[in-house]
Amino acid sequence: MLLPALREEVLLANKEIARRGLAPHTFGNASGIDRGGREPLVVIKPSGVGYDSLTAADLVITNLDGEVVEGKLRPSSDLDTHTLLYREFPQIGGIVHTHSEFATSWAQAGRAIPCLGTTHADYFHGPVPVTEPLTADEVAGGYVRNTGNVIVRRFRADGLDAVAVPGVLVAGHAPFAWGKSAAEAVEHADVLEYIARLAFRSVLLGASEIGIPVHVSEHHYLRKHGPKATYGQR
Amino acid sequence: MLLPALREEVLLANKEIARRGLAPHTFGNASGIDRGGREPLVVIKPSGVGYDSLTAADLVITNLDGEVVEGKLRPSSDLDTHTLLYREFPQIGGIVHTHSEFATSWAQAGRAIPCLGTTHADYFHGPVPVTEPLTADEVAGGYVRNTGNVIVRRFRADGLDAVAVPGVLVAGHAPFAWGKSAAEAVEHADVLEYIARLAFRSVLLGASEIGIPVHVSEHHYLRKHGPKATYGQR
Amino acid sequence: MLLPALREEVLLANKEIARRGLAPHTFGNASGIDRGGREPLVVIKPSGVGYDSLTAADLVITNLDGEVVEGKLRPSSDLDTHTLLYREFPQIGGIVHTHSEFATSWAQAGRAIPCLGTTHADYFHGPVPVTEPLTADEVAGGYVRNTGNVIVRRFRADGLDAVAVPGVLVAGHAPFAWGKSAAEAVEHADVLEYIARLAFRSVLLGASEIGIPVHVSEHHYLRKHGPKATYGQR
Amino acid sequence: MLLPALREEVLLANKEIARRGLAPHTFGNASGIDRGGREPLVVIKPSGVGYDSLTAADLVITNLDGEVVEGKLRPSSDLDTHTLLYREFPQIGGIVHTHSEFATSWAQAGRAIPCLGTTHADYFHGPVPVTEPLTADEVAGGYVRNTGNVIVRRFRADGLDAVAVPGVLVAGHAPFAWGKSAAEAVEHADVLEYIARLAFRSVLLGASEIGIPVHVSEHHYLRKHGPKATYGQR
Repeated sequence: MLLPALREEVLLANKEIARRGLAPHTFGNASGIDRGGREPLVVIKPSGVGYDSLTAADLVITNLDGEVVEGKLRPSSDLDTHTLLYREFPQIGGIVHTHSEFATSWAQAGRAIPCLGTTHADYFHGPVPVTEPLTADEVAGGYVRNTGNVIVRRFRADGLDAVAVPGVLVAGHAPFAWGKSAAEAVEHADVLEYIARLAFRSVLLGASEIGIPVHVSEHHYLRKHGPKATYGQR
Repeated sequence: MLLPALREEVLLANKEIARRGLAPHTFGNASGIDRGGREPLVVIKPSGVGYDSLTAADLVITNLDGEVVEGKLRPSSDLDTHTLLYREFPQIGGIVHTHSEFATSWAQAGRAIPCLGTTHADYFHGPVPVTEPLTADEVAGGYVRNTGNVIVRRFRADGLDAVAVPGVLVAGHAPFAWGKSAAEAVEHADVLEYIARLAFRSVLLGASEIGIPVHVSEHHYLRKHGPKATYGQR
Repeated sequence: MLLPALREEVLLANKEIARRGLAPHTFGNASGIDRGGREPLVVIKPSGVGYDSLTAADLVITNLDGEVVEGKLRPSSDLDTHTLLYREFPQIGGIVHTHSEFATSWAQAGRAIPCLGTTHADYFHGPVPVTEPLTADEVAGGYVRNTGNVIVRRFRADGLDAVAVPGVLVAGHAPFAWGKSAAEAVEHADVLEYIARLAFRSVLLGASEIGIPVHVSEHHYLRKHGPKATYGQR
Repeated sequence: MLLPALREEVLLANKEIARRGLAPHTFGNASGIDRGGREPLVVIKPSGVGYDSLTAADLVITNLDGEVVEGKLRPSSDLDTHTLLYREFPQIGGIVHTHSEFATSWAQAGRAIPCLGTTHADYFHGPVPVTEPLTADEVAGGYVRNTGNVIVRRFRADGLDAVAVPGVLVAGHAPFAWGKSAAEAVEHADVLEYIARLAFRSVLLGASEIGIPVHVSEHHYLRKHGPKATYGQR
C-alpha cells in the first residue's frame, strides 16, 4: 500500500472533521499530498463513506490530474477542487472541506468575514475571503474544478497569499481550509468555524465591518508567524 | 406480529428522532408504510410514549383509514396527517414529524426557507415550502387530517413533487419530512433542521431571499438525484 | 423525618433542573407543597448548595409563613416567592425557579413571549406573561416576597388562571414555572425554555407579535387539557 | 518545588477553563498569586500547552517583574498582562483569561455589557466594562503589558473597583476575569460568559441599554457582597 504514513494522517484529519462537529452526515473531506515522489500523489477520502467506519485502506490515492493510482472506492466528489488547489498553491500540504455551521452561513450570505479580533488575526491575515458565485458556464463545464478556479481567482484578484490566508468561503456553498499538512488544515477549518461564530454575534451587536486596527492585527499575525514568533514553546 | 421488519425500521427511526435531538419530550413521531399487502398498512409510534422505552411491539399498525389493525396502545395523535400524506403522495414510504428547533422557528414565522446553498440544493429542489395557517373550519372539522390537507394544498398550488421536495413547514406548528423509507425520512428531517440553522444565520447576515443561482441549485440537485448522479459509491 | 415521599420528589425536581441545563451554578430551585396535613408544609432546596451533592435530608421544610419546621440548612433565598405563590395559587403543588438562558433573555428584555406555535399552545394558554419591574419601595420592603407579588399582580390584572398559564417571566430577573407537582413544575420550566428558544428565533425571522390564530391555539390547549383531551395514553 | 498548594489550585483553574468550554484550543490561561512571601510570586500556565496534559509541575513561577523563578517551560504569552493586573489591583488573588464565545463577541463589537438582569447584578456592579483599543504606540512598545494598562485605564477613568467589577472586555480581543483566588476567577469567567449570552439575546429582543433599575441591581449586588449578604449557607 502506498504512502502509509500520509494515509494515517489523512485518516486522522477526516475523523477530526467528525469529532469536532465540522460536518454533519458526510458533508466534508480531508486530503493530504506527498510532493516528494516521482509525481505528486494525493490521499483523499472516498465519496459518501461515513467517518466512523473509515479506514486508512479505504482512502484513495490519485495524481494531480485526478487519476486514481491506488484504491477500490471512488474518490470524494470534491477531488477536482483539491487537486486544483494543490496545483495552484504549491506551499500547501493538506486541504479540508467542511460544511461547518457558521462558516457555511457566512458563505451562504456571500460575505467575507471581517477581522474583528485577535483570534482571527492570529490565524488569518485580513478578512476570510469569499468567492464569486460560479457562472452558468463554469457550472456546466467542470463544476468541481471550477470551484477551485473561483477560489484561485479571488486570491489572485486580491493579491492574497495562501499561507497567510489558509482558507476561503465558496459563495453559496461552504468553506475550504488548508495548511502545510492535513493536520494543520483541519485545525484551520476548526478555527475558521470558531471565528465565524464570534463574528456572527459581533456583527449582530453592531461591530464595524472595518474590524480591528491594522497595527493590532499585524502584531497578532506576526506573533504566530515568521521569525519573531513568540507564541508556544519554541 | 405483523410486519416485523418494518416495525424494526420504524422503531429505529423514532429512536433516531431522539438521538439527533430533533424533538424534545415526545414532540415527534415516525411512521412507515407497507404498500405490498392486501391493503396498505402503516406502522406508527404510539401517542405520548417516550423514545427510550419504546419497543417494536409498542408500535401501532393501522390501515390508511386510520383504523387500528394491530396494537394495544393509541396511535400517535398525528396519525391522520400521516395517513393523508401516504394517500396523497404514493411515492413515499416513511414520514417523520419533529419539533426540531430551527425548522420550527421558521414554521412559526410562517416563512419558507429559501435555497441559500448547495447543502440545501442537494436535498430540496427549491425552497422548503410553508403551508397556510388552518382556517377555523379546518381546525374544527378534523384538525389533524386537515394539517395534511394544507400540506397537499401547498404542493398542488406550487406544482411541487413530493420526491424532489421531501419536507414542509406547517405554519405556526412544525416540520414534516418524508422519504422512500422511514430511515430516509428521518435523515431528511435532520437535514431540514441543519439547513434551517444555516439559513437562519445567513438571513441575519443579509442573505438575499432569492438564494443561489438556479444553475447552481439544479446542478447540485441532479448530482444526488436521477440517472446522472455522481455522489457516493454506486 | 417529615414528608419522605415529597422530599424525594422535590429532590428529583432539583436534580432535573441541573440535568436539563436550566440553571448554571446554583441559580435555580424547586419546591413542593403538602396541603393535606394540619398546616400546609413546603419542601424546598437549601440556599447555595450544589445539585450534585444535594440529598433528600438536606431539603428544608417550612410552613407558609416561611418558618423552618425541619432542617439544619437555610432555605433557598427565594423561599418567600415560593410561599407567596402557594398562598395565592391554591391549585398548584410545585414551583421551579430557573435562570434558563432563553427564558431569562426574554425576562431581561421585559417582553412577554407571544404564542407563535402549537408547542406553546399545548402548554400555555396565551402569551407567557412578564411582570412589571419592582419599585424601589418593593425592593426595600421585602424584595423576595414582592417578587411573588408582582407575579400575582400580573395574573390579576390580565385575568390569568395559574393552571392554564403555568409560568411567568419576572422582568429583569428570570422565569418561575409551576404545576400540580414539583415534577410537573420542572417539566413546565423545561418547556418554557424550549418555547423561549423557538420564539426568539421566530421573532428575529419576522414573526408577528400577534401569534397564531386563536382557533388554532385554543384547539391545541384543549387537546392536552380538560375533559376532551386526546393526547397520550388515557 | 515552590508553592505546591497554589500550583494545585492554578492547575485546577486551568483545567476548569477547558472543562467549562471557555477557550477552544489553548486560547486561555489562569494564574494565581502568593502575596505572603519575601516577594510576591505568580503561578501561571506555560504557553501553548494543552489543558489535558498539563501538570502542576509544568506551571511556571515568576515574580511581579515577570522573571521566571521556577519552571522549565516558557510562561503564558499573556504573562505581562497578569503581572500588571496583580500590581495594580492588590486585592485580587487569581486571574483568568479566556476566549469564551459570547464575551469575546461583545469584546469584538467594542461594547460594554449592560446590566440587564439580576444574575449580572449578583456578580458585577454595573456594566461589564470594555477597554479602548490599543494605540499603535502601545502595540509596538509592550503589547501584552499595555493590554493590562488599557484595562487599568478603563477602571481609573470610570472609578471602578476591581473587587466589585471582577472582569473586563479587552476591545477587539477577549475577556479577563479575576477574583480573590484562581478558583473564584474561573467562576467569574464562567459567569461572565453566561451573562454575555443572556445579554446578547436580550439586546436582540430590544432590551434597553439602560438596564434594570439601580434599586434592583444594588439590592442584588449587596445580597451577595458585604456584611448584609443573605445568599448561601453562612
